[in-house]
Amino acid sequence: MNPYEGLERPPFVWNQHKDVPEKVHEWIRPVGEKRPEDAEAVLYGVPLSRSSISPSAASAFPEACRRAWRGFTTYNLDEDVNLSGLRLYDLGDVKQHVTDIPQCHQNIVDASADVKRHHPGSVSLAIGGDHSITAMIVKGLKEAAPDKTIGIVQLDTHFDLRDMRELGPANGTPIRNMVESGLVKGEHIHNIGLHGFFNTPDLKDYADHHGIHYTTLKQARKNGVAETVAQALESLGGKVDCVYFTCDMDVLDMAYAPGVPATTPGGMRTDELFEAALVCGRHPKVMAMDIVCLDPEKDVAGMTVKAGTHVMLSFLTGVAMR
Amino acid sequence: MNPYEGLERPPFVWNQHKDVPEKVHEWIRPVGEKRPEDAEAVLYGVPLSRSSISPSAASAFPEACRRAWRGFTTYNLDEDVNLSGLRLYDLGDVKQHVTDIPQCHQNIVDASADVKRHHPGSVSLAIGGDHSITAMIVKGLKEAAPDKTIGIVQLDTHFDLRDMRELGPANGTPIRNMVESGLVKGEHIHNIGLHGFFNTPDLKDYADHHGIHYTTLKQARKNGVAETVAQALESLGGKVDCVYFTCDMDVLDMAYAPGVPATTPGGMRTDELFEAALVCGRHPKVMAMDIVCLDPEKDVAGMTVKAGTHVMLSFLTGVAMR
Amino acid sequence: MNPYEGLERPPFVWNQHKDVPEKVHEWIRPVGEKRPEDAEAVLYGVPLSRSSISPSAASAFPEACRRAWRGFTTYNLDEDVNLSGLRLYDLGDVKQHVTDIPQCHQNIVDASADVKRHHPGSVSLAIGGDHSITAMIVKGLKEAAPDKTIGIVQLDTHFDLRDMRELGPANGTPIRNMVESGLVKGEHIHNIGLHGFFNTPDLKDYADHHGIHYTTLKQARKNGVAETVAQALESLGGKVDCVYFTCDMDVLDMAYAPGVPATTPGGMRTDELFEAALVCGRHPKVMAMDIVCLDPEKDVAGMTVKAGTHVMLSFLTGVAMR
Amino acid sequence: MNPYEGLERPPFVWNQHKDVPEKVHEWIRPVGEKRPEDAEAVLYGVPLSRSSISPSAASAFPEACRRAWRGFTTYNLDEDVNLSGLRLYDLGDVKQHVTDIPQCHQNIVDASADVKRHHPGSVSLAIGGDHSITAMIVKGLKEAAPDKTIGIVQLDTHFDLRDMRELGPANGTPIRNMVESGLVKGEHIHNIGLHGFFNTPDLKDYADHHGIHYTTLKQARKNGVAETVAQALESLGGKVDCVYFTCDMDVLDMAYAPGVPATTPGGMRTDELFEAALVCGRHPKVMAMDIVCLDPEKDVAGMTVKAGTHVMLSFLTGVAMR
Amino acid sequence: MNPYEGLERPPFVWNQHKDVPEKVHEWIRPVGEKRPEDAEAVLYGVPLSRSSISPSAASAFPEACRRAWRGFTTYNLDEDVNLSGLRLYDLGDVKQHVTDIPQCHQNIVDASADVKRHHPGSVSLAIGGDHSITAMIVKGLKEAAPDKTIGIVQLDTHFDLRDMRELGPANGTPIRNMVESGLVKGEHIHNIGLHGFFNTPDLKDYADHHGIHYTTLKQARKNGVAETVAQALESLGGKVDCVYFTCDMDVLDMAYAPGVPATTPGGMRTDELFEAALVCGRHPKVMAMDIVCLDPEKDVAGMTVKAGTHVMLSFLTGVAMR
Amino acid sequence: MNPYEGLERPPFVWNQHKDVPEKVHEWIRPVGEKRPEDAEAVLYGVPLSRSSISPSAASAFPEACRRAWRGFTTYNLDEDVNLSGLRLYDLGDVKQHVTDIPQCHQNIVDASADVKRHHPGSVSLAIGGDHSITAMIVKGLKEAAPDKTIGIVQLDTHFDLRDMRELGPANGTPIRNMVESGLVKGEHIHNIGLHGFFNTPDLKDYADHHGIHYTTLKQARKNGVAETVAQALESLGGKVDCVYFTCDMDVLDMAYAPGVPATTPGGMRTDELFEAALVCGRHPKVMAMDIVCLDPEKDVAGMTVKAGTHVMLSFLTGVAMR
Repeated sequence: MNPYEGLERPPFVWNQHKDVPEKVHEWIRPVGEKRPEDAEAVLYGVPLSRSSISPSAASAFPEACRRAWRGFTTYNLDEDVNLSGLRLYDLGDVKQHVTDIPQCHQNIVDASADVKRHHPGSVSLAIGGDHSITAMIVKGLKEAAPDKTIGIVQLDTHFDLRDMRELGPANGTPIRNMVESGLVKGEHIHNIGLHGFFNTPDLKDYADHHGIHYTTLKQARKNGVAETVAQALESLGGKVDCVYFTCDMDVLDMAYAPGVPATTPGGMRTDELFEAALVCGRHPKVMAMDIVCLDPEKDVAGMTVKAGTHVMLSFLTGVAMR
Repeated sequence: MNPYEGLERPPFVWNQHKDVPEKVHEWIRPVGEKRPEDAEAVLYGVPLSRSSISPSAASAFPEACRRAWRGFTTYNLDEDVNLSGLRLYDLGDVKQHVTDIPQCHQNIVDASADVKRHHPGSVSLAIGGDHSITAMIVKGLKEAAPDKTIGIVQLDTHFDLRDMRELGPANGTPIRNMVESGLVKGEHIHNIGLHGFFNTPDLKDYADHHGIHYTTLKQARKNGVAETVAQALESLGGKVDCVYFTCDMDVLDMAYAPGVPATTPGGMRTDELFEAALVCGRHPKVMAMDIVCLDPEKDVAGMTVKAGTHVMLSFLTGVAMR
Repeated sequence: MNPYEGLERPPFVWNQHKDVPEKVHEWIRPVGEKRPEDAEAVLYGVPLSRSSISPSAASAFPEACRRAWRGFTTYNLDEDVNLSGLRLYDLGDVKQHVTDIPQCHQNIVDASADVKRHHPGSVSLAIGGDHSITAMIVKGLKEAAPDKTIGIVQLDTHFDLRDMRELGPANGTPIRNMVESGLVKGEHIHNIGLHGFFNTPDLKDYADHHGIHYTTLKQARKNGVAETVAQALESLGGKVDCVYFTCDMDVLDMAYAPGVPATTPGGMRTDELFEAALVCGRHPKVMAMDIVCLDPEKDVAGMTVKAGTHVMLSFLTGVAMR
Repeated sequence: MNPYEGLERPPFVWNQHKDVPEKVHEWIRPVGEKRPEDAEAVLYGVPLSRSSISPSAASAFPEACRRAWRGFTTYNLDEDVNLSGLRLYDLGDVKQHVTDIPQCHQNIVDASADVKRHHPGSVSLAIGGDHSITAMIVKGLKEAAPDKTIGIVQLDTHFDLRDMRELGPANGTPIRNMVESGLVKGEHIHNIGLHGFFNTPDLKDYADHHGIHYTTLKQARKNGVAETVAQALESLGGKVDCVYFTCDMDVLDMAYAPGVPATTPGGMRTDELFEAALVCGRHPKVMAMDIVCLDPEKDVAGMTVKAGTHVMLSFLTGVAMR
Repeated sequence: MNPYEGLERPPFVWNQHKDVPEKVHEWIRPVGEKRPEDAEAVLYGVPLSRSSISPSAASAFPEACRRAWRGFTTYNLDEDVNLSGLRLYDLGDVKQHVTDIPQCHQNIVDASADVKRHHPGSVSLAIGGDHSITAMIVKGLKEAAPDKTIGIVQLDTHFDLRDMRELGPANGTPIRNMVESGLVKGEHIHNIGLHGFFNTPDLKDYADHHGIHYTTLKQARKNGVAETVAQALESLGGKVDCVYFTCDMDVLDMAYAPGVPATTPGGMRTDELFEAALVCGRHPKVMAMDIVCLDPEKDVAGMTVKAGTHVMLSFLTGVAMR
Repeated sequence: MNPYEGLERPPFVWNQHKDVPEKVHEWIRPVGEKRPEDAEAVLYGVPLSRSSISPSAASAFPEACRRAWRGFTTYNLDEDVNLSGLRLYDLGDVKQHVTDIPQCHQNIVDASADVKRHHPGSVSLAIGGDHSITAMIVKGLKEAAPDKTIGIVQLDTHFDLRDMRELGPANGTPIRNMVESGLVKGEHIHNIGLHGFFNTPDLKDYADHHGIHYTTLKQARKNGVAETVAQALESLGGKVDCVYFTCDMDVLDMAYAPGVPATTPGGMRTDELFEAALVCGRHPKVMAMDIVCLDPEKDVAGMTVKAGTHVMLSFLTGVAMR
């Protein structure tokens, strides 16, 4: 019995990919070993998380993010911006080692410098990995352009100023690492979104002593998170050559982001974060960013992975609007 | 040893149901084959979701919704309205076929027309099912009352204007289906709540070309979502004979509604949605509504099923307040 | 556009239930307040679990079991037995109280006696509930037929012989409760399936002192679990008037039954348990049984609920084969 | 092969605890059998939840809360307050019985009175357990200080005014229990946060009849939840000798608190609740509080346990700010 | 501060793929539009599951299976067989339609015929999808080689002989579909592994009437499942030109395979299934196989996806041993 | 209203611990800084898993194991052995570093040597942690007793013979690490339980070349896993001074142990593993053991944590039976 007998049909086809990119994975091209000369933006994965204080599978986010691209179009309806016009390439992942964390970190420094040298005018996005990578990426940027001063906009629940002598270059120390190694001055750092019972008083003292700017979430909400970020950028804009935007996904409230190593209540909402990321992307001095501490294995219903991916796209919307 | 010896006890009873309805499942009466003449509102399930783009168990929502009634009373404390005075009947489910999607859709058309003919003055609620059912229900309404013009208020993350020639009558095409089949005019459609990277530019062009009204969530929040919906209703009220309210549960933020086929970040909050549903229910021209694309199998902690059920009750509160 | 235009269709129908029972829920009829005279077997729910040592939602199993019936046909293919010929009725649930555990227990005693008096020749199945109910059901049976001696076949990881003075009539004490209250003699109790580190030595001493028979899972597997159960029944058959079969679902290995309050490794497999239940059902002296300590809220993928339901059907297959 | 050969190393150490408390578990000292004379605040667990209407493992929250302390520092960055200066002691758990609920409740009454007598000037925190414990704790307070009038600030989705004759001292009746036993006057009770379809009209009538104050979440949000609580405290301050703050975690929205027995949509956000708890802690007449109906076994990603723990710390921040 | 200063390091590298295949995903090459002439075996995905009786995401298994390849090496240690010598190609997925199930099925028929014509001597593996695809694949094989008689070895909990007139070409009807359309004779079908209460008596009657061979799991275990399959193959070998092996993953016990639409207790263990798949692969007349009804969205801990992937590799081990 | 009025009650008590140990956590005493002279066995945690190939939270198992003790009594009913007579002490955890893996490993070497020197006649149990720790513990044993030859009994799905030059001292290399560093001879190693597609041929070649004994699970089952282990011990007994038993929890089937970094189908059952652990514990030459690669964060229903804890208790039962 053939239930379809007599119906005319078009010639059968095997599944094929689309020519015109609609979804993000159809737009962002992996480049393999080649280095495109015309990149407006480049993206790479940094699958390192064994340097985290508590167990973390943030090393799985680069791949999870790429898979999540299938669920997003290139078109930002709110801003009427189509990202597909932006020439963004995926350089692949920085190689990591199973037990040699110093080697992992050096690879990230080298990769960051390498990217900066090959794509000096491009905006670069690093998909982490844990927060320890931020200090390494900034070190690489500095190696490639030693005379540029760098400012930092950080969205985070934590100061990330813990003692290097206790933890080494872990995900609790990147900001201190950069300050102590002279990569970035304290007064060129703005941390926005801190809240609750997740820092110790000595870290606040350290921040005060080094002139690091910080705004709790509660304070930031008075003018709005995006406006607070805009003011930080404006303030930095007159003082530094370029700005690095580091987005620790644990800044989000646990209801929106269960998939981070130490998810907390009382944090930011995703709509606030997306708006802030767009503001960063739009600012002409922001030349690099990272998304860190997103652990897909702790996620619930894929929501944190989607939120992290949306941060990347919101940032790129800002870049496209420059 | 008898630990209870000597204690006097009331005569033992087997479990029984209550006479006075307190919970929703004690209030809404299933009618079986009978057709009550005095219905102020009727409700039926449409357990079809094999017409969804991605795998969906939205077909399980009618039963899940009925079970969730046990967790809700009939009394809306915020509005001091007791729904139990409303004569609402449950007509059961529209019969579906395992592999014949056209037959499923025709059954829905027939059921909708049947309901309209038997209960012309009643408000009808369809518990989906995926969004493809909306076009079928509206087609049935039109068949039963061909000279009435129908307007649409849609709460959705998506336009649902994708190409029928590519997808057929799927959950991505119902609005286009209605426009192209002449059931509803573009200018009689208001879509509220769109956001993010979940539509393509050609769909916006289509909407613009056909005069479909749409308001992104960001825009809607400027005056409040409920107020935006109220304005859409007011605008429609002068132009159409009746209004159909379609609530795609994917309009909600993933933190509030993980149980939809493609849950997204950056969406609506439940308090906004419940208020909007009440506003729709209260408007005298809204004669039918549906709740679609709620997949109980993807739910977390039963929260999306509860949210969908609350939408139904908020809408009914509005109806009771007319 | 109507994509189905021109296709002939059968008259539309609303969903309906089948006349000939194929699934278990179509076969087992709820009786409400009526008492069928022709029952070969009767079934009732005992939704009590607040008497459990650790938090338990075993009170939710009666409803969960009834819902699971939809996933089982009445036909046992292995034995070529169709249960639908058996006149089995569902009497509903024994009424429980929220804070008065003695009242709950008395209701169970009364219900059990009531069932025995109305259906003296029927096999009765109690769907628990926690193991504390067993002592109450047996007490009810004894009240209804005081001159009958009762033997017990118990499948359990535990002795359930803990001290009444410490715990009261909890799920750790039912067997001791029955022994100490004189309902059942120690030598008329056979416990099969104990294993691991889940009992204390004083309980073994108590069992030895009262002549309670017990066989660890390891010992039982030497001849097979079903054969061990068959021998226990044969031994009891010559000594008692009727046998009560109590199945504590925690006898199963955690891989097969995560949904019990204290699931353990090293337990029974479901194929062993189903076979044992059938052997019990087939024995002419087994007049009542219960299934206890199955907590649907702790379940994974619905597997324990399905296993518990299968135990009921395996037992009934045995009854049908008598 | 020794990969570390030649590296100098500090002498190896076994893991040790810190001297200076940074995390909450390093600060709050368990006292065992001793009774510290210098306590500014005391805390105890009340692991009872078998008195809940639906199955609940709220009895597991005291231990879960203590474990969660490891994820919180003692330092509230928002308020720049370090709790470690507060002398807070953990008295352990009130003993419970497996099947004797009246005994459980009496133990709570006795424990509460005992705490009040030993620590008359201390603030006491009870970590529940279900809401039935509130009436018992207040009874104990009254026994220890019979001439003090007590007011109640309640954050709850429900009235908790259900009929004692139907449910006994369950988690749906504590407020009625206190009113009917004369412990607290209706007009000294303020319930804030009610919403949705989770109460019956007769409960509202009861509240109205007894002059109980209640503010729905929607009303409370007009001035802000914290401000509404502050006004309730101010109003109570002039009328009663001391205020008891009872926080039913089900007041929270399901997106923020899936781990409660009957989680609902449309509830409070955690930022609102934390602010309200701080306001309560800061008020000099608030001498005791509880956190109830938090079921860790229903939790998702540990978020409700963290939220409950944060409520405790926010309240203590207020106490430290007095 | 640079914690790695002074350490010599190899030149940094970006991540790269291996030349010599160790993992399955490094071995199986996707062919895109090309058709390799030297294929010993070919594999393709059939992502259709909207033809399933209950909601199913079996359409997601082809991609899930490919991702799972990363967790398996090409080397079968038990048999000391390295699959990497086998020339196996991945042809991609058969194109599916969102709402036109007949079109989906026709595409599968066409794809199967296309594969057979291009690779007449190769063994072909179809990664489903639901069981409805089996009838379509066999139809395609028959179209490409009309004069060959085909036998079936089926591992299944169900007969899959339900009435086409009721369900159409769904996942409950494929075997009947083939018998009624004359593709395969009843006596050339062997179904092994049936058990429990998951079939109706009329299906057994149908099987008996058409001479279909079936062996319940209980019977099969007497000689061992693999031996039973070997006997079926031997019996078929003398009667048909080639054998098709269809593996419905629901044959497995729920403890081993929660990720199927209707997982059941009392089923096969994975070690039995893997051995049976190897026996099929080794038999020279088995020219095609499929793996169906594996729903990754219902999976727990990825275990069913891994089991399905292992079935594929066990079968291929047999092929390599020919 | 006081519902308990008139009832006499015993004096209220706060919760207290028992004097006579019944549960494992009441028996095993933590020693803090003291070193008991009379230890028959000692236990310590090794919370290191950042040296794992894939992300692992095996570092959380020591604490999870200690918590799981509450669910086990000290009494092995199968063997009628009460462990509480054994003087076993818990030495606490070996200190770990966040980013300095060599330091972590050195600490383990030092701790192991320290334990051996202080408790030369005791059996020592290390609760891992990942498999990299095994080489470190054995190195420590060798440092403390350099003239003793050590044999290994390994239960594992993998050879764990991967190349140190590629991975360093990771969880894929411990056996090779020991062979290459001369700690253990290849012929003194017995690996039992390998199966499936989870090793590469070069590892088998390495094993063959170094005379490492290995038995696949399939082979081991012919005589029984426990008997195979007994034979390995007997063979080793004549050749070495002492035997180290290393239990990689990934040897278990995924249905029994989802909580390991790379859970596989086709593995061992828990009853086989427990029996094997007892056989090891009973052999007089087995002086140390570890349990590794159990990741509690990947667990389902706590079953792997319970299985790992049972392995420890089964091993100790053997020790007690010596």
